[in-house]
Amino acid sequence: MRTLLDAGVDVCFTNPGTSEMHFVAALDTEPGMRAVLTLFEGVATGAADGYARMAGKPAATLLHLGCGLGNGLANLHNARKARVPVVNIVGDHAIYHTRYDAPLQSDIETVARNVSTWVRTSSSTQMLPRDVAEAVAAAQGPPGQVATLILPADVSWGDGAVVASPCQLTQAPCATDEIIASIARALQGGGNNAILLGGRALLEPALLAAARIATASGARLLAETFPTRLECGAGLPFVERIAYLPELATVQLSGLDNLILVDAKAPVSFFAYPGMKSYLVPDGCAVHELATPSQDAFGSLQRLCSRLGAERGTPALQPPMRPARPRGRLTAEKVCKAVGHLLPENAVVVDEAQTSGTTLPMFTAGAPRHDVLALTGGAIGLALPVSVGAAIACPQRPVLALVGDGAALYTLQALWTMARERLHVVSIIFNNGAYGILELELERTGAALRGPRARAQLDIGNPALDFVQLAQGMGVAATRATTADDFTTALERALAVPGPHLIEAMVPRALSKLKLKVLPHLLRAIPRLPQSVARAIKRTVIP
Amino acid sequence: MRTLLDAGVDVCFTNPGTSEMHFVAALDTEPGMRAVLTLFEGVATGAADGYARMAGKPAATLLHLGCGLGNGLANLHNARKARVPVVNIVGDHAIYHTRYDAPLQSDIETVARNVSTWVRTSSSTQMLPRDVAEAVAAAQGPPGQVATLILPADVSWGDGAVVASPCQLTQAPCATDEIIASIARALQGGGNNAILLGGRALLEPALLAAARIATASGARLLAETFPTRLECGAGLPFVERIAYLPELATVQLSGLDNLILVDAKAPVSFFAYPGMKSYLVPDGCAVHELATPSQDAFGSLQRLCSRLGAERGTPALQPPMRPARPRGRLTAEKVCKAVGHLLPENAVVVDEAQTSGTTLPMFTAGAPRHDVLALTGGAIGLALPVSVGAAIACPQRPVLALVGDGAALYTLQALWTMARERLHVVSIIFNNGAYGILELELERTGAALRGPRARAQLDIGNPALDFVQLAQGMGVAATRATTADDFTTALERALAVPGPHLIEAMVPRALSKLKLKVLPHLLRAIPRLPQSVARAIKRTVIP
Repeated sequence: MRTLLDAGVDVCFTNPGTSEMHFVAALDTEPGMRAVLTLFEGVATGAADGYARMAGKPAATLLHLGCGLGNGLANLHNARKARVPVVNIVGDHAIYHTRYDAPLQSDIETVARNVSTWVRTSSSTQMLPRDVAEAVAAAQGPPGQVATLILPADVSWGDGAVVASPCQLTQAPCATDEIIASIARALQGGGNNAILLGGRALLEPALLAAARIATASGARLLAETFPTRLECGAGLPFVERIAYLPELATVQLSGLDNLILVDAKAPVSFFAYPGMKSYLVPDGCAVHELATPSQDAFGSLQRLCSRLGAERGTPALQPPMRPARPRGRLTAEKVCKAVGHLLPENAVVVDEAQTSGTTLPMFTAGAPRHDVLALTGGAIGLALPVSVGAAIACPQRPVLALVGDGAALYTLQALWTMARERLHVVSIIFNNGAYGILELELERTGAALRGPRARAQLDIGNPALDFVQLAQGMGVAATRATTADDFTTALERALAVPGPHLIEAMVPRALSKLKLKVLPHLLRAIPRLPQSVARAIKRTVIP
Repeated sequence: MRTLLDAGVDVCFTNPGTSEMHFVAALDTEPGMRAVLTLFEGVATGAADGYARMAGKPAATLLHLGCGLGNGLANLHNARKARVPVVNIVGDHAIYHTRYDAPLQSDIETVARNVSTWVRTSSSTQMLPRDVAEAVAAAQGPPGQVATLILPADVSWGDGAVVASPCQLTQAPCATDEIIASIARALQGGGNNAILLGGRALLEPALLAAARIATASGARLLAETFPTRLECGAGLPFVERIAYLPELATVQLSGLDNLILVDAKAPVSFFAYPGMKSYLVPDGCAVHELATPSQDAFGSLQRLCSRLGAERGTPALQPPMRPARPRGRLTAEKVCKAVGHLLPENAVVVDEAQTSGTTLPMFTAGAPRHDVLALTGGAIGLALPVSVGAAIACPQRPVLALVGDGAALYTLQALWTMARERLHVVSIIFNNGAYGILELELERTGAALRGPRARAQLDIGNPALDFVQLAQGMGVAATRATTADDFTTALERALAVPGPHLIEAMVPRALSKLKLKVLPHLLRAIPRLPQSVARAIKRTVIP
């Protein structure tokens, strides 16, 4: 524990069992370590993800053998895909005990490898501190990664360990002069160019450099569909996120001559669909990589900026702009409008409202500056745990979690930790009684039959979930809103009073029956329509 | 789906995503397949476990890529350790899509191998039906196992599949004559002998054969600590379960000359502890294996019975006996007493009340015949999902889930499926505001320091969990009991009215502060005390 602290890891999200009791006992001699108890491992891992996104350094998790790690796997997957540093400490049986194949015995290492490039089972108490220091360094990268240290109980309870000093961290290199020269040439050659920013290239310094390059070269700025951490709002450059649906992404990317990647991957479809392309970069578009995830995105953008003579250029910045206070019956769109209307300065917005949140970027674009954390790996159940971690990393900043009803039910236990730690998190649940995203997907699969039994698999409104009771049952103050006024008032109050709040927004499904019928055809037609028509459809049908 | 149905798999516990939409769409053409929707994969996998334990045949699960499988891993671990057949169908990206490393892409096969001996990614639509038939056969064993079929989306949506007929099932062989003769000799040689029954040897036919052997030979009958399915109660043979704590198990096993294993492993400690043995069979005790999990336990016991000339012997049977109706302030013990007082004929009792349920076997031993399903792999979060599956397998039988507050919070979403499917499950939550088992374990680790920060990691009473609100929030009728009368009346009502009910039993921690201080020392002393004293301690301190 002292080695962890010396390496800067001073928060641990826990769900311990018997094999972790020595780690737990050590908390009383190491007051510098903040141990945050969770009721489920998926909350612990998601919180570690959220913490690292906001703190810029890893937290530890404390998990109980292979099954505990399994329960935390989905949110570790999200962290892995986002290259977020996390240090897992997974307790295991005593080394001499494993040969007896006791009930909880399983192969932890292979499960760990699903999410971690760095996996090690500590083999002795003497080696343990060095293993810990190396785990922290491995997690920090670059690029950031999930490092998993498996800690057998006898290694944990043994004597003779000496605190290890932190490992030297690796500095991320910048792009080479050749790469910069070649990309500068591409941008100066005119044509239709875009810079796709991802990972750490979505933080303010990199964004400003990218915006200067954009002004100087005429290139557009794009962002990954699901940003790890996007600093945005009034006074920062606006970047257009690539759409989730490939039909819309294709429109965004059509006609490009050059696509410059900065800590981002070339866009691919989230899922495959019959008869549709997976790779979304248009034919004939040259792809250039300015900075890989292992490189310094900001430094590389700065150099490119200099090369283009744009260091002193004026970046285009988003002007302040807020939507009006919404009125009338509540809809998902009006929830997003109310958020845009009220969003306080420096808020952290965790977005896991797949269908209900589609208008959120539009209504918050000109709100005071804030951070957006998204569903980086597509494994749902992220928003509530990530909010826990973000609130612990940034105790002075309000956190808003926007979550669909389906997604909220994967890791609802996060509410209890919010109450226990008195975190200022406002959880907004879009209760539409459905797996809305799947209603759309079912229409799009091309499956000939969409009868009542298939539909029933997407219907979570029978019985109706009551999120007010669920939240109160975990100690979180909660209220239900059925009108736009109710909702806006509830959000105002929740933001004004420190501590956790939940607002259950009763909304109709974002995609009406008519839209669901028409949409797949429309989406399929989009790439064949004139761009102006396609853009208009895109704006009105799904913003 | 037709291949599944032809092989006898007609229930599927689902939590689908986009890549499973073709499977979902097919539900409307195959009305024979019952699809039971869950809000979390751990519920789906635990339900498949509970279903197979009671139905004696596998159900399928429908899971969404590697993260969905990860969320279901803990309960699959419990099924694996219990050798329960489960057929996982895990949707994956289209084969041609995997090279793009889309957000949800991960290595599913290695995660699957953690719990499944049989893992296959179906490579074409033509091969798919054969893969399905082989998956079902592999799951059925013997021994039963978790089989995982990974189903890429394009294999799923392709044409040209022809229904495959079910595979021939393997018959489990009996023990050889040599083994039977050798075990018969050991039993006839006098001495202190015991027969340890596990797996399918705890079902009525095997129990009766074992009880006849016991009568004829003087051997004692023991059962695994955590039985997969134990048929017990008045009119069936009584078997003593091996204690969870190794100090108590050591007393149970001390002085044995021969231990006969029937579909069971030689007892080992659940966890390792400093300075204690892992392997609990006493030195000098010969271990014989009558039937491995791959063999026919009942047939082998029958043959042994014949060899001993005991086929017509009278097995000792448990006489009917019920505890009185409990009175006064509610305690965990009184909850168990009330269950024993009221347990209806043919109930299924799912037991995941680690510290609060210790007196349950004592108070239900003479209740009308019933089945006990236990926490086979030690991965908590089992009872509520397993109850869902048991209730679907046995719609005419009442199911009682006894769960600690900590354990209930891992897979609480099971309540919603109980409400949706109107299952007759009574969930009894022991709310003591603590990870009680860990309080005991923390005392036993020998860790020198047990200060307030370590203690806080075991305290889940701050904020207090309100299970009545949590249950109602998922559509399940719920009530809170603080007196023994309240509880007994609530249980009577819940058993009388079909459909799901939850009773929150407000109980003090089963292990008082004094017991917690004394117990570790007492437990450590037990193996050195005279057996009669040790047994007396065992009965009074922890039954």
